[in-house]
Amino acid sequence: MKHVTPSAGLDALFRPSSVAILGASDDPTRISGRPLRYLLEGGFKGGIFPVNPNRETVQGVKAYKSLADVPAVPDVALLAVPASLTEQAVRDCIAKGIKGAVIFSAGYAESGEEGLEVQKRIADIARAGGLRLLGPNCLGIFNPQIGFFGTFTQSLDREMPGPGPLGIISQSGAYGSHIAYLARKRGIGINYWITTGNEADIDVAESLEWMAVQPDIKVIMAYVEGVRDGPRFRNALELARRNRKPVVMMKVGRSEIGAKAASSHTASLAGADAIYDAVFAQYGVHRATTTEEQIDVAYACARGVFPKSNKLGVVTLSGGAGVLISDAAERYGLDVAPMPATAQKKLKDLLPFASVENPVDTTAQALNDMNLLARNIEVILDEGGYDAVIGFFSSVPNTRTLSGPLRDAIAKGCSRFPDRLIALSMIGDPEVVAAYEASGFLVFEDSDRAVAALAALVGFSAAFDRSDDAPSIQPAASIGTEALSESAAKALLGAAGIPFLDERVAASAAQAGADADAIGYPVVLKIVSPDIEHKTEIGGVMVGVADRAGVEAGFETLMARAAEHRPDARIEGVLIAPMARKGVETIIGVSRDPVFGPVVMFGIGGVHVEVLKDVVFRLAPFGRAEAVRMIDSIRGRALLSGVRGSAPADVDALADVLVRISEFAAAHHDDIETIDLNPVVVLAVGEGVVALDALVVPRRDLN
Amino acid sequence: MKHVTPSAGLDALFRPSSVAILGASDDPTRISGRPLRYLLEGGFKGGIFPVNPNRETVQGVKAYKSLADVPAVPDVALLAVPASLTEQAVRDCIAKGIKGAVIFSAGYAESGEEGLEVQKRIADIARAGGLRLLGPNCLGIFNPQIGFFGTFTQSLDREMPGPGPLGIISQSGAYGSHIAYLARKRGIGINYWITTGNEADIDVAESLEWMAVQPDIKVIMAYVEGVRDGPRFRNALELARRNRKPVVMMKVGRSEIGAKAASSHTASLAGADAIYDAVFAQYGVHRATTTEEQIDVAYACARGVFPKSNKLGVVTLSGGAGVLISDAAERYGLDVAPMPATAQKKLKDLLPFASVENPVDTTAQALNDMNLLARNIEVILDEGGYDAVIGFFSSVPNTRTLSGPLRDAIAKGCSRFPDRLIALSMIGDPEVVAAYEASGFLVFEDSDRAVAALAALVGFSAAFDRSDDAPSIQPAASIGTEALSESAAKALLGAAGIPFLDERVAASAAQAGADADAIGYPVVLKIVSPDIEHKTEIGGVMVGVADRAGVEAGFETLMARAAEHRPDARIEGVLIAPMARKGVETIIGVSRDPVFGPVVMFGIGGVHVEVLKDVVFRLAPFGRAEAVRMIDSIRGRALLSGVRGSAPADVDALADVLVRISEFAAAHHDDIETIDLNPVVVLAVGEGVVALDALVVPRRDLN
Repeated sequence: MKHVTPSAGLDALFRPSSVAILGASDDPTRISGRPLRYLLEGGFKGGIFPVNPNRETVQGVKAYKSLADVPAVPDVALLAVPASLTEQAVRDCIAKGIKGAVIFSAGYAESGEEGLEVQKRIADIARAGGLRLLGPNCLGIFNPQIGFFGTFTQSLDREMPGPGPLGIISQSGAYGSHIAYLARKRGIGINYWITTGNEADIDVAESLEWMAVQPDIKVIMAYVEGVRDGPRFRNALELARRNRKPVVMMKVGRSEIGAKAASSHTASLAGADAIYDAVFAQYGVHRATTTEEQIDVAYACARGVFPKSNKLGVVTLSGGAGVLISDAAERYGLDVAPMPATAQKKLKDLLPFASVENPVDTTAQALNDMNLLARNIEVILDEGGYDAVIGFFSSVPNTRTLSGPLRDAIAKGCSRFPDRLIALSMIGDPEVVAAYEASGFLVFEDSDRAVAALAALVGFSAAFDRSDDAPSIQPAASIGTEALSESAAKALLGAAGIPFLDERVAASAAQAGADADAIGYPVVLKIVSPDIEHKTEIGGVMVGVADRAGVEAGFETLMARAAEHRPDARIEGVLIAPMARKGVETIIGVSRDPVFGPVVMFGIGGVHVEVLKDVVFRLAPFGRAEAVRMIDSIRGRALLSGVRGSAPADVDALADVLVRISEFAAAHHDDIETIDLNPVVVLAVGEGVVALDALVVPRRDLN
Repeated sequence: MKHVTPSAGLDALFRPSSVAILGASDDPTRISGRPLRYLLEGGFKGGIFPVNPNRETVQGVKAYKSLADVPAVPDVALLAVPASLTEQAVRDCIAKGIKGAVIFSAGYAESGEEGLEVQKRIADIARAGGLRLLGPNCLGIFNPQIGFFGTFTQSLDREMPGPGPLGIISQSGAYGSHIAYLARKRGIGINYWITTGNEADIDVAESLEWMAVQPDIKVIMAYVEGVRDGPRFRNALELARRNRKPVVMMKVGRSEIGAKAASSHTASLAGADAIYDAVFAQYGVHRATTTEEQIDVAYACARGVFPKSNKLGVVTLSGGAGVLISDAAERYGLDVAPMPATAQKKLKDLLPFASVENPVDTTAQALNDMNLLARNIEVILDEGGYDAVIGFFSSVPNTRTLSGPLRDAIAKGCSRFPDRLIALSMIGDPEVVAAYEASGFLVFEDSDRAVAALAALVGFSAAFDRSDDAPSIQPAASIGTEALSESAAKALLGAAGIPFLDERVAASAAQAGADADAIGYPVVLKIVSPDIEHKTEIGGVMVGVADRAGVEAGFETLMARAAEHRPDARIEGVLIAPMARKGVETIIGVSRDPVFGPVVMFGIGGVHVEVLKDVVFRLAPFGRAEAVRMIDSIRGRALLSGVRGSAPADVDALADVLVRISEFAAAHHDDIETIDLNPVVVLAVGEGVVALDALVVPRRDLN
């Protein structure tokens, strides 16, 4: 996959040196008055040019009758005008030479066909004129570093956000405002905030791409309902990953899984939301389930410290809390590994009454000697081998006498280890929390949320450190649009490296007998026809045929059945194949997502796929490491490791097949609708994988 | 199950009219000084009698040289003395005629064998003397209604909790203090708080039982690490359920699943924690995963309003939040059912720009006319048929101008519907939240937490309204301690109503042939021996035997194999059975939990049980409705509904079998260790269930 260098197209919008406000109102409480109010309150240092034909000044700032009258060329125009005046305003912006315009007004694509037409026309005009558009139907953009607030969001009413490590991108203005408010409340500053609304031009993918290369962003929060430009979105996520910028994503619409109409078995499992899960897994994006989780993870990311391992140290004043944190650690995949024996002995010498294995329960008695507590923490960090430690201190930080001494003791214990992440589960009033944070600790009231956030950081760390082998895509001739027979499908995929059984197609009974002799008995016979997809339904399959006579008779039987049930079908002969060998039956499929293109599905066969929906998706193409992660992520993974004494399955060979099918699907990006390999039998380790059946449906030929 | 009337034994401890403090210190910051300080600060109106041989007064209160000197008989004594003086103090309490003593000091069962011995001796002394004990190694007890604070918990340092609808029971003093602190912070008052520590006498079960019948408790929060008295715990939970008192439980130790040694297949799946899940499901307890969730649910319960259905109305200012809440609703099992068409029309007339189906997205424009918003909410409540409604208002309540008007508008819309639960997802400073709560709304910052809490209330409502048919337990003769053969096991369970195949045991080849003729061919042959558990391993099973000659020959073959492989085994003959019929293979088992007694397990056969651990447990006995809930709660439930065109399975008959095995297990409470019915084939609807194999292991005869 090629990685596009992000456009500089958003530079002017995020860092304008001057701003025009078309339709600026003198009333700072009105939608059309708020942007100017926020620019003034935010201390924007660049030029501010209100345009209002009816006033000399607006909110005390000199106003202009028209954009043409403005005595400079502003970088950005905020269009606080009704929808009916927007088209003309866009033309005026182009005439003036403005780089970017923000359209606040609604009434476009979201309101129906007519609005969509107008929106398209405006976008066309802007594109032709070299003007970038944000919106329409958006809440705008801001950058507190330079006091630029190109927004009318009500959420700035009480307080403006300060600058900081966060970049926020939201398709919903309300949600973008909501998380900006929560971020400020949590003490996380924001350097860039953008709401993309109807995305007539600038979309969430371009915004992500832009933020992924900004050196002054440490974490990106995004809210997405649906992506328009799949390839660009992937490219943006990969850029972010390579630049070690965590993306904390809220993608809504999970409950609409399955709403999408689907044309094949594989595709029917590929609800759009499952595809997003695949994309996020593939690029190391953290998908938050709740807003609180999204804020928590972003808060933890803002330190820029990502634990290299999943080993978690736990220090607690209460045994119960230690168990609670251990339970949570298991749930989130962190390892509460025991302290080395020598370190345990040191701790026991310090605090004879403590549990020292991990969790280290100092009991509340540790508060009687803060030096001992500090030393205890130091030993844990020095000898425990933990990249991250959680301390549980309940409401002690909020007590009058112990708050400061406790904070100092923890800080002293940690002072030699600035590379470690220390999260405290504690209750404190806002000023207490701020003081603890200033000492270098992450603070969470709830211990579970602390564990969840640390686990997310471990996930980012692993994703950032990946150096996967790249998949290789060979240019491939089109497969055309005609339906493929099973044997043609197998030939096609076999050439691409997918292993099938030694199968032969015979056109006569005598040839069938000779083929079976060559393959060895027993064999399976199947009718071969591009027109018959479900062969068993017409009795077109015979298994366990034991000798040449049976094969020759079977040939005639199958031909007769085909002629009887499907006289119209084109018959290419009878397939002769060896009997299947024992192994774990899996399913591999490819479908086309309208946004992201070819998607590979993998699942364990039978009820696992059909009833339990235990399947996993990845965008094609992907490399071997991703294929292994894909296999490892299904719930029934243990079935491949050998159950009840059966041999472990050849997962390496399975991963190879997944890589190859993904490369094939990517090479045929435009001409394949679906592929079903079902079943794909995974044999014992060293014996490989064999696909027993193949269905390839070219694009534009869906029945 | 008999329901014990709870003892009044805790009345004196929770509502003492006077209190002695043995070892009371004049220093109010010391552990031994804090209880007196808290009693004074709490305004306890009863008698307070500090006992301190060295002082005339303690913290300004007249002190006594010894308990004997106290000029009254206090109800309760707080023992703030070292462990070494505790035994004598207990004797003194008995001599004085005190009803209950609280032992704060540690160094007993939790410190090892020696401490356990001392603890037992003190408990024996107390029991013989009619003195109830709380602790040792506990943080005590409090009741803010009367200012009684028999505790030294540090968490009261800054502020005392006020009275309210909450009862808190915790085995951990630190965790009990932690949640009491959080409850106060959340504005929920506490009427009773007890920490049970080492539970030498008073345990969590008795405390629950006591709280379950207090009219001034609306919700019980509990923290449990392990229960000592299973039957009493069950009785307490059932009392709470019948009295419509929600129990919000934190049970820690989930990650130790499987640590328990187990002697049979069924038992090895019955990790102790899974048994707690079963108990909680059975008695309608809400098991919280996180502390935050525990507080959230208790907070929501404190209103005492429990929605009768799972239909959820959603009002939002933002479409994105509406999708987010819909996603969460699906996750938690709530139904965002659409508004009736007539009501949708009314809403559309009110707010033409709104989405009106449900979620009702008024958009932020609704804030321009609060009367319209109020009317909108009124229509939703009046015509939507929702018992619970969530409103999403982001940070609007925290704006200077809109906070009050918004609150009034929502209250106006809700005023005719005091029986509905209204939860608001909103951001507000503490005083803003308090004002909204005072208007009758539940307030959650995060919408997901609001949905989760409402879903918990729906769960309580359903549990409270259950009127299950009671299981019937017949007195049963002991099955002895000798191992049972398969046929004996089947006879025993067959008599208890478990359906098996028409099977016969033949002692000769000729008898085998005659039996097979009577049953009909083909048949299965199995060796019958109480000494051979795994028959297939010695080739002791033959399937699909087609005629009399085969049966007679097979008889001899099986006898020969048994003689060869297990010459020592007692052979009772050969079992003749019809071939199994097709259906869904399930597993039913019984194991003995050391705390709760017989436990019934159910799972779908094969990998579902072994790899996916898709099994569910219930304490025996239970009725039909519980059996149905049990079946419905497994992940693979869809397999019983007919997959890929197969007929739906006879779930009614399956439920009957579960009830019968639970009744059998309860009747044999003391003499059965495990039962395995594997497989139990569930046939098509109307055709019943048939168990193919049975293993019964009596107690005290484990191999």
